[in-house]
Amino acid sequence: MIFRTAVRADLPAILELLVADQLGRARDRAVVDETYEQAFAAIDADPRNELIVGDDDGTVVACMQLTYIPGLSRHGAERLQVEAVRVRADRRGQRIGERMMAWAIDRARDRGCAMAQLTTDKSRADAHRFYLRLGFVASHEGMKLAL
Amino acid sequence: MIFRTAVRADLPAILELLVADQLGRARDRAVVDETYEQAFAAIDADPRNELIVGDDDGTVVACMQLTYIPGLSRHGAERLQVEAVRVRADRRGQRIGERMMAWAIDRARDRGCAMAQLTTDKSRADAHRFYLRLGFVASHEGMKLAL
Repeated sequence: MIFRTAVRADLPAILELLVADQLGRARDRAVVDETYEQAFAAIDADPRNELIVGDDDGTVVACMQLTYIPGLSRHGAERLQVEAVRVRADRRGQRIGERMMAWAIDRARDRGCAMAQLTTDKSRADAHRFYLRLGFVASHEGMKLAL
Repeated sequence: MIFRTAVRADLPAILELLVADQLGRARDRAVVDETYEQAFAAIDADPRNELIVGDDDGTVVACMQLTYIPGLSRHGAERLQVEAVRVRADRRGQRIGERMMAWAIDRARDRGCAMAQLTTDKSRADAHRFYLRLGFVASHEGMKLAL
């Protein structure tokens, strides 16, 4: 298992991961179209965004998006924001998510980030335990407004 | 009162706002140094980041940072992430924060963002009521890990 930056050929597998999710199912379709292609290209071209996949011998079994947010707080430190963390349903319980998050945290430390942060839907109890085990603190309310 | 992108000359006033905050006081100093200058320049140069100030006749009385995160979810939509929302203590209760957030939400809608999101420390009860009034839903746990 390696973690690496996604390439265009990974897009169908990543969309499958997003759509397979209980909450993602209502929001997305697994069919690559021009809009998804453009979004992929935008992420890929942005030096502060990385779409990462967990690649098990050529098969994408996990994904996440890393965003490095520059800021003034904490003496001008960047913070890592993690979005869209998914592990393929039939590969859960194999510590893939744990290894992927540890990889992300190492990458953020190497880059000099002062903090890693993410939000997780309050209905995802398993995810909360998972992040608390990794050392995250549920110190904040995560507020969302659909536009 | 206008809301506009911050310029280098606003940096001392913005740092004052960050340091005056109850939680920011432990983390930052109001003295502009090279590190803060570099962080300001990094935000300013990034087309997906904007440092915004509330300018009342030439005086900075509020600030916030807007980050537009590209993504695949929600059919490849960007989301607006809001950080570092501050209103000068002696100017609270004048709906400056409300007007600033409404301005941010309009800007995100104009850009085509599908969502606005932020996290707020669980100790900030006033802030929670403020965001709920604006239509935000406290649907997520906000997880943080200091690096």
